[in-house]
Amino acid sequence: MALKGNLLYAQSGGPSPVINSSAYGVLDEALNSDSVGKVFIGNNGIEGIIKGDIEELTYKEKQDLLLLTQTPGAAFGSCRHMLPELISDRSEYEAIKEVFEENNIRYFLYNGGNDSMDTVSKLASYFKKIKFDCSVIGIPKTIDNDLEVTDHTPGYGSAAKYIATSFGEIACDASAYIKGRANVVEIMGRDTGWLTCAASLARLTGYGPDLIYVPEAAFSREKFVNSVKRIMSLKERCFIAVSEGVKDKYGSFIAESAKKDAFGHAQLGGVAANLSALLENSNIKTRAIELNLAQRACAHLASKTDIEEAIQVGREGVKDAIKGLSGFMVTIVRTSIKPYLVGYGLTPAEKVAGQIKYVPDVFLNPEENDISEAYFAYALPLIQGERKYKTSNGLISFFRH
Amino acid sequence: MALKGNLLYAQSGGPSPVINSSAYGVLDEALNSDSVGKVFIGNNGIEGIIKGDIEELTYKEKQDLLLLTQTPGAAFGSCRHMLPELISDRSEYEAIKEVFEENNIRYFLYNGGNDSMDTVSKLASYFKKIKFDCSVIGIPKTIDNDLEVTDHTPGYGSAAKYIATSFGEIACDASAYIKGRANVVEIMGRDTGWLTCAASLARLTGYGPDLIYVPEAAFSREKFVNSVKRIMSLKERCFIAVSEGVKDKYGSFIAESAKKDAFGHAQLGGVAANLSALLENSNIKTRAIELNLAQRACAHLASKTDIEEAIQVGREGVKDAIKGLSGFMVTIVRTSIKPYLVGYGLTPAEKVAGQIKYVPDVFLNPEENDISEAYFAYALPLIQGERKYKTSNGLISFFRH
Repeated sequence: MALKGNLLYAQSGGPSPVINSSAYGVLDEALNSDSVGKVFIGNNGIEGIIKGDIEELTYKEKQDLLLLTQTPGAAFGSCRHMLPELISDRSEYEAIKEVFEENNIRYFLYNGGNDSMDTVSKLASYFKKIKFDCSVIGIPKTIDNDLEVTDHTPGYGSAAKYIATSFGEIACDASAYIKGRANVVEIMGRDTGWLTCAASLARLTGYGPDLIYVPEAAFSREKFVNSVKRIMSLKERCFIAVSEGVKDKYGSFIAESAKKDAFGHAQLGGVAANLSALLENSNIKTRAIELNLAQRACAHLASKTDIEEAIQVGREGVKDAIKGLSGFMVTIVRTSIKPYLVGYGLTPAEKVAGQIKYVPDVFLNPEENDISEAYFAYALPLIQGERKYKTSNGLISFFRH
Repeated sequence: MALKGNLLYAQSGGPSPVINSSAYGVLDEALNSDSVGKVFIGNNGIEGIIKGDIEELTYKEKQDLLLLTQTPGAAFGSCRHMLPELISDRSEYEAIKEVFEENNIRYFLYNGGNDSMDTVSKLASYFKKIKFDCSVIGIPKTIDNDLEVTDHTPGYGSAAKYIATSFGEIACDASAYIKGRANVVEIMGRDTGWLTCAASLARLTGYGPDLIYVPEAAFSREKFVNSVKRIMSLKERCFIAVSEGVKDKYGSFIAESAKKDAFGHAQLGGVAANLSALLENSNIKTRAIELNLAQRACAHLASKTDIEEAIQVGREGVKDAIKGLSGFMVTIVRTSIKPYLVGYGLTPAEKVAGQIKYVPDVFLNPEENDISEAYFAYALPLIQGERKYKTSNGLISFFRH
């Protein structure tokens, strides 16, 4: 293909352990493509781009590029900015077009979740409308695994591997004494239970959750306490994996009541603290654990499969943009179950924008307090493979922008 | 040396990432020694031994022995039981002696912290008094690094490596947006700040704590809020490492007030939640993070240096017992600073029993909100080296007893 112009890459939304692996895929593919001129970075996603905060990759950055695949966070900064409807306010669209025109940006790769795909869709439509020749392609990213169309999202496999490993290690540790506790482990997921389901994989270490609660199933405090009591009486300890977003049958968040208890101090514990207090009221000794930010920042424990796929969705996005496609998101397609094989496809970004993919019923057990075999078969291939990473002084080395 | 009798090994106190590496060292050394007959395990430490709950290593366990070096928790169960003073109650001593006599136990290796060394000291004195020929040797263990005499404790290096790695990853992740938060990261340590100081090592990744607070320094809420405000105004985000056991100048735990806020619900957050609430009152956006049990269960991220030393203290303990020594704990002696080299020594267990080694003044900065260069030089060698571990299905494999 002939050289058409320059490429811009930017990141958006909450980081994942492998969003920077996708950055590596995009940037390496672009730097090696005859169709792409200069390679630019947008700082802090569309929020920075609107202000013209874009810059070329430096020489040092090009040398260090591979370090991106072992760097957590969003190496080029992120944002939570969404474009307004074109019909109500054109100013941001026009600002972006001006920056693109000035820098001859003809390929724009935007890496994020369902909100970011809204930007991809809107921007591609706008460019088409004003006949501005620029391909806009979305690269999927989220540990939450809640994007529609794609079999799974880059980031989920690594978060799942971290959750399973940590849950196994914690449960092994907490099994040391003759009498144990009820350990309530809170896992990310406001809307969906994908991450919490991943705790089930810890069972392969010999130490997994006894009970799993996700937002897709109505949570009953009474059933919960009874289930924990039963397990405590059987084996003197209990391990519970619970999504931060579990709700009762009226749709109220379980974590809300904890906040009220604490005089409105917003950070005083979430669902793990709340459920622990509930169990303590029934004279069950507990421990509340939140897996916290480490779930999405766990670069050192990323899944090799996930890293490779994250790199490849980045590469595919560049190829699609060069083909002149615009307004699409790259998808992962599972082409074979055994052996696990994937291919890469495309979907209109508008099919992903603002949508949420929930854990389907068939991935839960009938009592809705555990996963089904079908989930296990779906998720296990995604955590396979350990990464080797470069260290310095005993610590993982990060890419610096 | 001639064959004298059998060896018994048991574990006590809170687990560490490498207590089972010491188990490996003890058991492998014993199995290969001509002076040792059968090799027994005591289940759940002295608590199980008193009840006669000891058993020989099985054939399968001997085959899997190396897996101990990558298994968190206490593979043979733990306890928090302490022996009464001999003068007030001899019954437990006599029960132990009976179990030992029945199984011809002539070497007893007890792996634990300062409370466990109390057991080593008392039991050795009792055996000497009644002229029962059995060598009792203590193997040090604790992530807290608070044992006297030894340069550092096996377990500290791995916990420090985990804390530094996780802190770096979390801080990198939390630096993605233009405007950040004050991130309060709560780290284990009720009495001492050794583990919290380890967060400083994260600076080598490019992302470390701005402020470090330990129990050894009186905590001032006013100074704390002012320091955070200053840093937030400079760089729009702040990272704070704080020990769970920080106290004000009157000696009251900072975390206590959080508990009172929450109507006595015991598990509703500790010091991170409390300090976050304090900052929110000053209109600073915060995030409270507890590193939780993963700090001491992080087998997958253990320091190679720590694993090797943990194995060696186990081996040294067996050699000392065979020499007929009793009532001692194995120590690590730093014989060279550059390059880092260690040797192994012994100390009477009574010098460690019930004692606490605090972070010395020279390891803190004059303002007592950070570490000094001297701490950095002390701690850095302890986190060196990455372990390779055996996996199955994408997850670390554990030894099962």
